[in-house]
Amino acid sequence: MPLSTDQAAEIDRLRTESASTRRAVAPALEEILYQALPVLDHGFVRVVDYMGDDAAVVQAARVSYGRGTKKVSEDRGLINYLMRHRHTTPFEMCEIKYHVKLPIFVARQWIRHRTANVNEYSARYSILDNEFYIPRPEHLAAQSKTNRQGRDAVLAGPEAERVFELLKRDSALAYEHYLEMLNEGEDGAPLDPGRSGLARELARMNLSLNFYTQWYWKTDLYNLMHFLSLRADAHAQYEIRAYADVMLDTLKRWTPFCHDAFMEYRMGGASLSRTGLAVVKKMLAGESVDQKSSGLSAREWRELMAVLER
Amino acid sequence: MPLSTDQAAEIDRLRTESASTRRAVAPALEEILYQALPVLDHGFVRVVDYMGDDAAVVQAARVSYGRGTKKVSEDRGLINYLMRHRHTTPFEMCEIKYHVKLPIFVARQWIRHRTANVNEYSARYSILDNEFYIPRPEHLAAQSKTNRQGRDAVLAGPEAERVFELLKRDSALAYEHYLEMLNEGEDGAPLDPGRSGLARELARMNLSLNFYTQWYWKTDLYNLMHFLSLRADAHAQYEIRAYADVMLDTLKRWTPFCHDAFMEYRMGGASLSRTGLAVVKKMLAGESVDQKSSGLSAREWRELMAVLER
Amino acid sequence: MPLSTDQAAEIDRLRTESASTRRAVAPALEEILYQALPVLDHGFVRVVDYMGDDAAVVQAARVSYGRGTKKVSEDRGLINYLMRHRHTTPFEMCEIKYHVKLPIFVARQWIRHRTANVNEYSARYSILDNEFYIPRPEHLAAQSKTNRQGRDAVLAGPEAERVFELLKRDSALAYEHYLEMLNEGEDGAPLDPGRSGLARELARMNLSLNFYTQWYWKTDLYNLMHFLSLRADAHAQYEIRAYADVMLDTLKRWTPFCHDAFMEYRMGGASLSRTGLAVVKKMLAGESVDQKSSGLSAREWRELMAVLER
Amino acid sequence: MPLSTDQAAEIDRLRTESASTRRAVAPALEEILYQALPVLDHGFVRVVDYMGDDAAVVQAARVSYGRGTKKVSEDRGLINYLMRHRHTTPFEMCEIKYHVKLPIFVARQWIRHRTANVNEYSARYSILDNEFYIPRPEHLAAQSKTNRQGRDAVLAGPEAERVFELLKRDSALAYEHYLEMLNEGEDGAPLDPGRSGLARELARMNLSLNFYTQWYWKTDLYNLMHFLSLRADAHAQYEIRAYADVMLDTLKRWTPFCHDAFMEYRMGGASLSRTGLAVVKKMLAGESVDQKSSGLSAREWRELMAVLER
Repeated sequence: MPLSTDQAAEIDRLRTESASTRRAVAPALEEILYQALPVLDHGFVRVVDYMGDDAAVVQAARVSYGRGTKKVSEDRGLINYLMRHRHTTPFEMCEIKYHVKLPIFVARQWIRHRTANVNEYSARYSILDNEFYIPRPEHLAAQSKTNRQGRDAVLAGPEAERVFELLKRDSALAYEHYLEMLNEGEDGAPLDPGRSGLARELARMNLSLNFYTQWYWKTDLYNLMHFLSLRADAHAQYEIRAYADVMLDTLKRWTPFCHDAFMEYRMGGASLSRTGLAVVKKMLAGESVDQKSSGLSAREWRELMAVLER
Repeated sequence: MPLSTDQAAEIDRLRTESASTRRAVAPALEEILYQALPVLDHGFVRVVDYMGDDAAVVQAARVSYGRGTKKVSEDRGLINYLMRHRHTTPFEMCEIKYHVKLPIFVARQWIRHRTANVNEYSARYSILDNEFYIPRPEHLAAQSKTNRQGRDAVLAGPEAERVFELLKRDSALAYEHYLEMLNEGEDGAPLDPGRSGLARELARMNLSLNFYTQWYWKTDLYNLMHFLSLRADAHAQYEIRAYADVMLDTLKRWTPFCHDAFMEYRMGGASLSRTGLAVVKKMLAGESVDQKSSGLSAREWRELMAVLER
Repeated sequence: MPLSTDQAAEIDRLRTESASTRRAVAPALEEILYQALPVLDHGFVRVVDYMGDDAAVVQAARVSYGRGTKKVSEDRGLINYLMRHRHTTPFEMCEIKYHVKLPIFVARQWIRHRTANVNEYSARYSILDNEFYIPRPEHLAAQSKTNRQGRDAVLAGPEAERVFELLKRDSALAYEHYLEMLNEGEDGAPLDPGRSGLARELARMNLSLNFYTQWYWKTDLYNLMHFLSLRADAHAQYEIRAYADVMLDTLKRWTPFCHDAFMEYRMGGASLSRTGLAVVKKMLAGESVDQKSSGLSAREWRELMAVLER
Repeated sequence: MPLSTDQAAEIDRLRTESASTRRAVAPALEEILYQALPVLDHGFVRVVDYMGDDAAVVQAARVSYGRGTKKVSEDRGLINYLMRHRHTTPFEMCEIKYHVKLPIFVARQWIRHRTANVNEYSARYSILDNEFYIPRPEHLAAQSKTNRQGRDAVLAGPEAERVFELLKRDSALAYEHYLEMLNEGEDGAPLDPGRSGLARELARMNLSLNFYTQWYWKTDLYNLMHFLSLRADAHAQYEIRAYADVMLDTLKRWTPFCHDAFMEYRMGGASLSRTGLAVVKKMLAGESVDQKSSGLSAREWRELMAVLER
């Protein structure tokens, strides 16, 4: 369960309040504001604030005094143009803030995106909860034989059982010892009044990378899309992709035109190298090309044929 | 006049609209939202959007599920603590967006703050208006004799008159020739239908640095305060300080607790060097110290005595 | 002439010195180190320092204890792989520092690249030289009729003559009045000992955007290539492209494998949208597609056909 | 042992090579280039490259054609001036690159400094070594009673013994199971040829936060000093401070004038709030001030008296 009863109640209370604003409002995003959208076994993504909408992108691109353009279709057309020609600054004019609960190993990948603001729950200062990630059976993949950072078929049978046993047992043990070193009972009282308890900033090092942490993460629309282009991609590790997929939905609610342009020009598109482009031109001209004559390496040739579905 | 009638009407229209939101709202900032706050002779600062408030800083610092703390006094205390101990990330969780009209030489100083998003009016694409900055008589300062980047007394009499004449005449001429090179009449029609007109991206180079440009500028609360600490400072050039002063007021409307903490711990405070601190300790212990025995250079000694008002 | 005799002598002296280092050295870049490579009429680009080489990219990608891989061909292959799959961090591990002299309107475009370090010559503090950019006749282009930020045919005849006359006369006048307001003679002595002279930070506003400024500009290899991908592109304004072209040569001298990979996968390649890719697949399958049936706008269709040279 | 025999040999070999360069050289830093400076039980810091020296800061500040100023004493004076007045851009003109081996929980603090380039050893792609951090007895501190993120006295006796036992046993077990899940023997051969082995990107989640990772980390001189001001500070966790202390030595070897200015104006200095400054002025004027009349909170009063050693 990602939320305690208290937390759920606090969110519900927050969602009942509303106020009047002169700012741009994104109604579909307001609908889910503050809600914890579940990800993995104990994680979530919550949109906790945002600034701007599709029209704000247009407004910034035109450095205008009012909002957007006269016609909605013009807004969409300009957004498509900006995305196609890789104009980035108008998209930077919208901002979104998430509250995310995620396993530490996912957090370590995520934090590599530097153009964002982050405030993480401090395990120097506070005690982490007893929550750790255990993959669902269908995500317990074997190491790929061909791609050193990839996954292969799902593990099954005794091997899978043993992995689940190890992951669960070691995590439970690590947490039990964490509390023991802290001299901290489940009720917050010291386990043994005669002991001091290890400093929190030290005891945390006994926890494993599947424990959950949480943070506030804020970024602009351009950098959100850049994050999603990498993390909603098929090459991303499943566990971070699960977050990216949920965030793609929030993007659609927030700025539907930008979302559509992003899907058209980034996620669904393809990049060709100079040599790859030359191959395509030859093929279109009816010339026969194979890997040897193409100038591409065997791997690049395979990748190109996959893109072209040939 | 910073605004045309059309622009003023567009802003007025925008200010009449409002919508309901679940997000944090800063009422005092809403009051002036979209309004053009005049700066210099033709410039302005407009707040066009914002995200978060004082409570959002607290919320991020605590990575909390709800908003702020239970008591307003606790919020203020925590904000003071964060500012005093130079915690920066909670302040990065609020964001503000301005529309600014400013002389190009001011824009060139301003843009050096890199942690911001900017979308500038394009003179490659559009034609700049005939608006240029002329200082008011009380700001027409002489070059400082002692500080190579400082100002001295105000110029007066024939010298001042001559400067005003040159600035105005050269600016007017530059603009007249700009239009002539563009082959562009005041009404937008070509001056001479037989001519092509120089490319906009080239013609603009004839304009001088006092012409006005405009941009959308967006930054987070931490970086806004950092900008203000440098640009509302007495050492900043008057012309950019005029913008910073108006923005300080918007900061106060937006996040009054952060504003107060900023004035207390940044703007109004002082930094002592290791040797300067040793001097203060000696003085407090009743020892006599002079520049020679202090270990400070003559200049640093003067600066320290100025800070201590001795 | 971009350099004074003193400056040329100082550079020559610097180039005679050398020292021993354990660091990676890029011999072809050392050859031109410190030399002023001319750009436009008075500008230049000088490489004044660098860190790393092709092998350093490989070393960082492998987080290795030694340098590069065993074989040069492996280094090249890995660099191609990193570029193709848009891994950015290994390329960020090399750094280069330029001294650039450039017209202010070019500097204003350039500075929009934020991921760089910049230290500009200060016109608050110092007096600018009497050097301004005048395009060569073949670059005096008319405004494009079809693309609002583009150029058309070159201006000629009386229209060109008039433009040159205006640009030169206005620039000369602006500088003459700049010195007069500063009360500064060509020899540095006051023009009139009875006058104070206007503050430098104010007088500079009379100069036009074609005057030259200079700065130290430092960036990493990844961001240099990103800068070049935008500024050496056919859509960039000629005047900044002239700088990017010279910098492309320095890239080739510094990190030849990265340069080649950059030309293959960035500069010479193409991006297809989702719909564009679908069109290509249909064409390859022998289906007939036209703009109407393609789902592309007329403009996108034209752009795609241009890329495919059809 | 931070290094294997192979790694030590590779470093030794690298250190025997040298080449000629026209670039600025920092001889004291060259002396230790590539050497693994030990930190904690298995960690290290290695300087693997650098760009610039003290003179390069001066050169950038002056946007000069040659190197530094005429006199060394002028260079030192200018650097002090720049540091005192918080000019940051000239210090950004030098760059340094480290190879660091560090526990994951330290890496998680470190990575929060965003203005740096990082390339980390990938546990998606490779297998981590069996090396984890165990504090030395004198660093096994109890949780502070007064400061939630601080340490108190060192644990001793049976409590300390138990902590060591738990940390060591859990880490050893986590690693044993990590290899078992990977189906990877110590010799790299599969433990059981009939098993597939869990994907590396998943198996790593069983490791605890005291396991060592490594990365290349590159930053500029300004941001290095900013990092050190926070991480060599008494409030930083001991384990990251141990790295910062070693890096302070490398700073001294690299840019001794900047190092001295940094110690004088940042590390050894103090910041006073507006109210704190008013208190100091009153005390210097011989007025009696106590906490109540000062306007400071009890905590701020204590902090101020500590700074003034009163």
